[in-house]
Amino acid sequence: MSLFKKHEALLDRARTACRERHCWSPFPDMPGKYPNAEAAQAAGLRAFESHLPAAGQRSRFALEQPGTVGVLGEEISPYTQQALNIDYPQADVDVLFEAASVAMSGWAQASIDTRLGVLMEVLDAIYREHLFEVAHAVMHTAGQSYNMAYAGSGVNALDRGIEALVYAEQAMRSVTTQAHWQRPFGKELISLDKTYRLVPRGTAVCFTCASFPTWNAWPSMMASLATGNAVIVKPHPATVLPMAISVRVFRQVLQAAGFDPNLVTLALDSSAEPIGKLLVTHPRTAIVDFTGSVQFGQWVERNAYPALCFTETAGCNTVVLESSDDLDAALRSLATTLCMFSAQMCTSPQNIYVPRQGVRTPAGLVSFDEVARRLANAVEALTADPKKAAMILATIQSAQTLALLDRLSADGQARGAVLLAPKSYPHPEFPQARTSTPLMLKLSTAERAWYAGEKFGPISFVIACDSADDALAQASADVREFGGLTAFLYSDDEDFIARAETAYARAGAQLTINLTGPMPLNFAAAYSDYHVTGLNGAGNASLTNLAFVASRFCITQSRRPRPVG
Amino acid sequence: MSLFKKHEALLDRARTACRERHCWSPFPDMPGKYPNAEAAQAAGLRAFESHLPAAGQRSRFALEQPGTVGVLGEEISPYTQQALNIDYPQADVDVLFEAASVAMSGWAQASIDTRLGVLMEVLDAIYREHLFEVAHAVMHTAGQSYNMAYAGSGVNALDRGIEALVYAEQAMRSVTTQAHWQRPFGKELISLDKTYRLVPRGTAVCFTCASFPTWNAWPSMMASLATGNAVIVKPHPATVLPMAISVRVFRQVLQAAGFDPNLVTLALDSSAEPIGKLLVTHPRTAIVDFTGSVQFGQWVERNAYPALCFTETAGCNTVVLESSDDLDAALRSLATTLCMFSAQMCTSPQNIYVPRQGVRTPAGLVSFDEVARRLANAVEALTADPKKAAMILATIQSAQTLALLDRLSADGQARGAVLLAPKSYPHPEFPQARTSTPLMLKLSTAERAWYAGEKFGPISFVIACDSADDALAQASADVREFGGLTAFLYSDDEDFIARAETAYARAGAQLTINLTGPMPLNFAAAYSDYHVTGLNGAGNASLTNLAFVASRFCITQSRRPRPVG
Repeated sequence: MSLFKKHEALLDRARTACRERHCWSPFPDMPGKYPNAEAAQAAGLRAFESHLPAAGQRSRFALEQPGTVGVLGEEISPYTQQALNIDYPQADVDVLFEAASVAMSGWAQASIDTRLGVLMEVLDAIYREHLFEVAHAVMHTAGQSYNMAYAGSGVNALDRGIEALVYAEQAMRSVTTQAHWQRPFGKELISLDKTYRLVPRGTAVCFTCASFPTWNAWPSMMASLATGNAVIVKPHPATVLPMAISVRVFRQVLQAAGFDPNLVTLALDSSAEPIGKLLVTHPRTAIVDFTGSVQFGQWVERNAYPALCFTETAGCNTVVLESSDDLDAALRSLATTLCMFSAQMCTSPQNIYVPRQGVRTPAGLVSFDEVARRLANAVEALTADPKKAAMILATIQSAQTLALLDRLSADGQARGAVLLAPKSYPHPEFPQARTSTPLMLKLSTAERAWYAGEKFGPISFVIACDSADDALAQASADVREFGGLTAFLYSDDEDFIARAETAYARAGAQLTINLTGPMPLNFAAAYSDYHVTGLNGAGNASLTNLAFVASRFCITQSRRPRPVG
Repeated sequence: MSLFKKHEALLDRARTACRERHCWSPFPDMPGKYPNAEAAQAAGLRAFESHLPAAGQRSRFALEQPGTVGVLGEEISPYTQQALNIDYPQADVDVLFEAASVAMSGWAQASIDTRLGVLMEVLDAIYREHLFEVAHAVMHTAGQSYNMAYAGSGVNALDRGIEALVYAEQAMRSVTTQAHWQRPFGKELISLDKTYRLVPRGTAVCFTCASFPTWNAWPSMMASLATGNAVIVKPHPATVLPMAISVRVFRQVLQAAGFDPNLVTLALDSSAEPIGKLLVTHPRTAIVDFTGSVQFGQWVERNAYPALCFTETAGCNTVVLESSDDLDAALRSLATTLCMFSAQMCTSPQNIYVPRQGVRTPAGLVSFDEVARRLANAVEALTADPKKAAMILATIQSAQTLALLDRLSADGQARGAVLLAPKSYPHPEFPQARTSTPLMLKLSTAERAWYAGEKFGPISFVIACDSADDALAQASADVREFGGLTAFLYSDDEDFIARAETAYARAGAQLTINLTGPMPLNFAAAYSDYHVTGLNGAGNASLTNLAFVASRFCITQSRRPRPVG
């Protein structure tokens, strides 16, 4: 049975989900529901640990790709603050591009079915054989909690990969493979057979970020590979292992299916000697997928031409609190989202706008100061117990984030603006973990410089506005000026809600309204929630629409007279 | 009845044509087959003439758009070499952008059906009321023959417009407007209503070229408008009237349908003071569609960011003559294509590669010199009779092209390379017409500098190669290095044909094989032939695929708890 046949029913189910955008996933949403969960989790932990060297040693990640000229490895676990001491191959990128180019010719000629089948098999292999290994790798590089590493960096990322395949298929199948065309010219009938072929654009470079590597990478890789291209993965040097494992699985499955494994390779650099600009401007780069900082992302967007460029950087995600029939529930949900993975997600809210005169509730107006205090209390309540804090806050990926927290705390204290001061909490399993509870500052719109732009990490601002409409105007201006992916609104005024929907649609942030309860406010569901709109500076890589896939391949044709008779 | 209902059956027929890519058009292919042809043609001529002033005067093209700060007009008819003396409004472009932005809000909120209906009505209005007026305007600016102006710049351009609507619709309809999503989180079921809306990217600037304005412009305008954007048209100052008429029709139909006519405006410049760079880098430009020179096109591509950019510039279109079972028929077809509109089409061939040892035919090898001579003879035969020459060659749009012909003729003579010398021919209806028969040079691959890159106009090179494989290698290298839209092959060797199909597919030129008879070799049929692949320097605006439309709009969403019960 072909790999396409093997996975066709699942792919077809995914097509329906993408069309209808309801809730669906072929994967269990929690680690405990994984088949034979206990054994699988233990095996995954062992697989992760097998990458680590004995004390005082360095291990070598085996990746048999061409062009290896040395080794690199500088990862430090946010959980132990110890170096992982894993060495990965350092590649001569010209050799990788050449190998990718050679590999592409056979892959490009494979049928759509064949490519989709192989790529579904890749995702299946990650799910069946490497999911918990990847989860531990994500924990000890990105610093996520185990549950988030399983869901957000595991099954949900696999789902986004399948979703990208669905759209790639849709774009490719919209091109017929052949046509018979006939028309009279004068008295003669011209009868032509036309054949159309899909030609990949070339080699894609996929940049992955430090805090959330797989969730954007897997769909980007699927989009490029499904349309016939090769992919060179350039991981952030702080978070290599999840992508090294991924690259190896891609290579193994491609090779087992009879294709050249050099369709997927790893190009690592070090923080001391970055190769990002070299890769973006390399004459053989045809596509760039970038997830990372706003600053480098903007450079990438400006300099990628003639390569195509798909980006997800970051933004200023906003909240507008106008009114609520259950303010405490709203504040609990907001607090949860402010804490989730210490707000190191591109969807985490930062700027919380509240009318100065207060928030309307069934019990009357709740003053601005009271709202701010209750929100801070809700955050404090979530983070007071180290065990609960560990589940929700996890760790701080980068020491730079701690430095930013320190600086902003000091500045905030000097100004008397600190609503909640950050502190390290003791992680119950990893006493050396790099941790921090959130910093919350209370400001007014006169102090915009403080919150104008993304402050990466568990940092939020509760901002007093002149009115609800002012709150909305400020919030949507943030999105337009600094980029924004998500937005959150609490209001029981349908007119206000309608205005907010229009304002955020224009600014290009995905809006969640009046959501309370156990779902994280910033949860983005594959097959249903569009991620990144392309309307502001937060990026243009919308997971997943046709624009994310349709330009990754080109259409060529040949035509010739149909043989007579 | 809504405009969508009015045109739905036609649109649905076009959807089928795009899916199957067979031959179809709702329009008659020759002027004589137009309904009530004689009266319609006479009315069209009168409408054209009504734009012209009395002798010694200037007329004013009435276009009631905002921001008019003066008038401009420098068109010269290639048929009379006299100024048209028409003044068009010169606009303050900031006013146009502001007006476009205001106009977009209502248009963006209209349904897909509504927008498609209005735009089908625009095309229908051009067809019913302005087709022959546009044809005469194209003749006296671009210099095309009447028949080509009717077909290539008339009905075929309308077809490409409908085609763009089909793909815009396909991309937009792939996004559902709402979804119900529910999933358990812990013990609680979260049930969300999600709404998705399509948000236009912003204002598009559509650059149109001097020699073939409508064929690229109408589909580009349709693609932008269908997806909710506004369009500012920037015509080449030599060829304004066809676009001014078009813009006026768009505005009239939009207004009649209840929309703001400032969705479509005209921004004219002069050759002395071009505004192209200002428009491309204007902060409110969201999309650029460019048809024009390679040089400025490359500047546009490099500088359009953050605007999207769709280009069709030009290239080095190639011919490979390997063998033929009817060499004279092949040479006649080639000769016709070399003459068609004096090779001022982006699809006209230029570099004709022939093995030095000759071309295989049933009568044996025909030597390189003999092939070159017979091809030149075929061109001469087509252009000897002024009446026939007028039909096929039409005029030379620009005096610069005549200057290039002079220079290359002199250089070629000095080298003894002239196979056929150009000369003006007397146009039977327009004795002052700017005309030239083709220049053909005979060279070898040692003289590549002569033909490396596009030489715009009726200029071709017959080039001796080492072998058929060398011919193919040279030809596909031209496409890769200098861009190329079309390619032509004559061969009865199926292995060679297969190699050529692969080589041209990789280089990105659309290949026509062994075509003889009355169909012009470079005829590109709407709904069937993909125009521009995006794989080489000739541009990336493929008429029409999903990539041409899918990024012109973005998707935003909002989600909120579904009311209980």
